[in-house]
Amino acid sequence: MTGSLVAVDWGTSSLRGALIAADGTVREERSDTRGILAVPAGGFPAVFEALFGDWMRESGARCLISGMAGSKQGWVEAPYCACPAGRVEVGRSIIAIDAIPGQRIAMVPGLHDEHDGVPDVMRGEEVQIFGALSLLGRDEGLFVLPGTHNKWATVKKGRVTGFRTFMTGEFYALLSQHSILARTLDASAPLDEAAFVEGVTRADNGQGLLHNAFGARTLALFERMPRAELASYLSGLLIGEELRTQSLQAAGEVVLIGSPALTQRYALALRTSGTATRSLGAEATWAGLHALSGFLDSSATPS
Amino acid sequence: MTGSLVAVDWGTSSLRGALIAADGTVREERSDTRGILAVPAGGFPAVFEALFGDWMRESGARCLISGMAGSKQGWVEAPYCACPAGRVEVGRSIIAIDAIPGQRIAMVPGLHDEHDGVPDVMRGEEVQIFGALSLLGRDEGLFVLPGTHNKWATVKKGRVTGFRTFMTGEFYALLSQHSILARTLDASAPLDEAAFVEGVTRADNGQGLLHNAFGARTLALFERMPRAELASYLSGLLIGEELRTQSLQAAGEVVLIGSPALTQRYALALRTSGTATRSLGAEATWAGLHALSGFLDSSATPS
Repeated sequence: MTGSLVAVDWGTSSLRGALIAADGTVREERSDTRGILAVPAGGFPAVFEALFGDWMRESGARCLISGMAGSKQGWVEAPYCACPAGRVEVGRSIIAIDAIPGQRIAMVPGLHDEHDGVPDVMRGEEVQIFGALSLLGRDEGLFVLPGTHNKWATVKKGRVTGFRTFMTGEFYALLSQHSILARTLDASAPLDEAAFVEGVTRADNGQGLLHNAFGARTLALFERMPRAELASYLSGLLIGEELRTQSLQAAGEVVLIGSPALTQRYALALRTSGTATRSLGAEATWAGLHALSGFLDSSATPS
Repeated sequence: MTGSLVAVDWGTSSLRGALIAADGTVREERSDTRGILAVPAGGFPAVFEALFGDWMRESGARCLISGMAGSKQGWVEAPYCACPAGRVEVGRSIIAIDAIPGQRIAMVPGLHDEHDGVPDVMRGEEVQIFGALSLLGRDEGLFVLPGTHNKWATVKKGRVTGFRTFMTGEFYALLSQHSILARTLDASAPLDEAAFVEGVTRADNGQGLLHNAFGARTLALFERMPRAELASYLSGLLIGEELRTQSLQAAGEVVLIGSPALTQRYALALRTSGTATRSLGAEATWAGLHALSGFLDSSATPS
C-alpha cells in the first residue's frame, strides 16, 4: 500500500496503533500494554518491530508516533513546541528516529504553554486536536481531552493558542483508592447520573474541593447516600470543580475527545451548565497523525 | 490525688493521655501508637488498663476520653451533639463506660453540623476548642484545627455555632506519596517559607487546585523550582486553597490549635492575607477535658 502510514499513539502505560491508507482510511487497529514505562532501556526498536514490523513492511515503512514516547523517558526526545502552534509548526518540528535501517519513523513533539511563570505541557493531545479540526472541518473552538491529566485547549485559526492541565483523573483515582473515602465507596459501581449531577452542582457552592470531598464521607456515614452512588457523586464533585474555573459562556459547542466512558461524563456535566458538546474518540488520533504525515518525508534526520 | 483526672484524647492512629490535678495542673503526659484501629475487638479495657491503670489507681479512678474512641468503630459510641453546642450541651451528653468495676470512665461526644443537606462531624476537636476558650478567657472567635481532616469552627457566646471539615492533610499525603508529584518531590525536606508562601498566593489565582497541583510537576520538569522546595510549594497550594473559601475579614485574631509544625504553616498562610493568629497545642486538650470533668460524676451509666 504505497503512501500508507503506521500511526502510533505511544503513552505512558499503554499504546495504540493503526494502519492508515493514503486516503486516510483506517485499515486496522492494535493496542498493547507496553507503554513507555514497560519498555526496558534501549528496548524501543525491538518492541516496535514486534508490534508493527509486519505493518511497516506492508505500508512502505512510514511511521509517525505521538505521545509520551517523545518525552525524556521515551524513545527519542522531541522538544515541545511553544503555543500558539498549529499543524504546520508541529509538523516542522517532527523528529526523525534513525533507529531501524530502511524505515522512516518520526516522533511528533508535544506542546508547551505557560501561565504566570508556571509551565504546562501536553504530548499526544495536540495530535487529537488537529485530527478533530480535520474531521469536523473547523479551525477554532474549545477542546477538552479527559484522562488522568485532562487538557482544556483553545484553538483559533487552526492553532492551539493556549491550554491548561487538570489532574482530575488522578485525583479521582487517589481519592477512590487510597483516601478515607475508599472505605465506603464502590469504585466499580456503574455511573449514577443523578448522583453525578448532584456532585457537579455541589462543586459550585463556593466551599472548594477540600471541603466538598469530605461530604462524600459524611453522606455515607449518615446513610444519606447509597454506597453505589458515592463514586458517581465524587466524580461529579471533581469534574464540577474543573468546570467551575472555566469560562464557558463564549465557548459555543465544546469538543470532547477521549474514551466514551469519560466524554459521556463531561457531556453530562457541561449540559448542566447549558453547554452543548460533541464527542470524538480514537478516530481523532488517527486523523491527526494522517494530517501530519505530509511532514514525515521532510522530517530532519539526526546526522 | 483526690479530684484529679485521667484525660485521654484517643484518636484513629494514636492516643495521648495526661494526669491532671484537681486545679487543672498537668502532672504527667503519655502517648502511644495504639489508636482505635490498632485495638482488637473487645480489647479496649485491656489496652486502657495497660496504658493508664497506674494513673487510675492514683487519681481516684476518674477518666474522661475524647476523640474517635467515641465513634462506632471505637470503645463505646457517644452520639454526636448537634450545633450550636457549648460545654454544657456536650457535658450533659457524656456517656459513661461501665467496663471496668470500680472505675468511673466516660466518653465525650463529638459535634454534628449540616450544610445544605450534607452532614459534617468532629470528634475531639470540640474539647480542644472548649479548652482554648478556657485558657484564653474568650467566648467567641474563629478556631482552626489543622490535621488530616482540618476543622474551621465558629464560636459565639461559648458555643460552637458551626464548622466545616477540609481534607487538606489527607490530600497532601495522597499527592506527596501516591501521585505523579511524588516522583520529583522530597516530602522530608524542611519547610521553605518562600516556596510555601508562593503556593499560598498561587492558590488564589482562580484556576483551582486540580490545575495548580499540576504546576508542582511542571515546575520540577522545567527545573524552575528546586526539588527541595516542591513539598513546601504543594503544602502552600493546599492550605491556600483552604483559605480561599474562608471569610476572614470579620474574624479578628484566628486561634490555631494543633502541632507546632502545622500551626506554624497556617499562621504563615494567614499572615499573607493580613490575618493575625494565636497558636495552642496539647494544653488545649487537657484544659478542655478538665473543664468538662465536672460532668463526669453525673454522666449517665448504661443500665
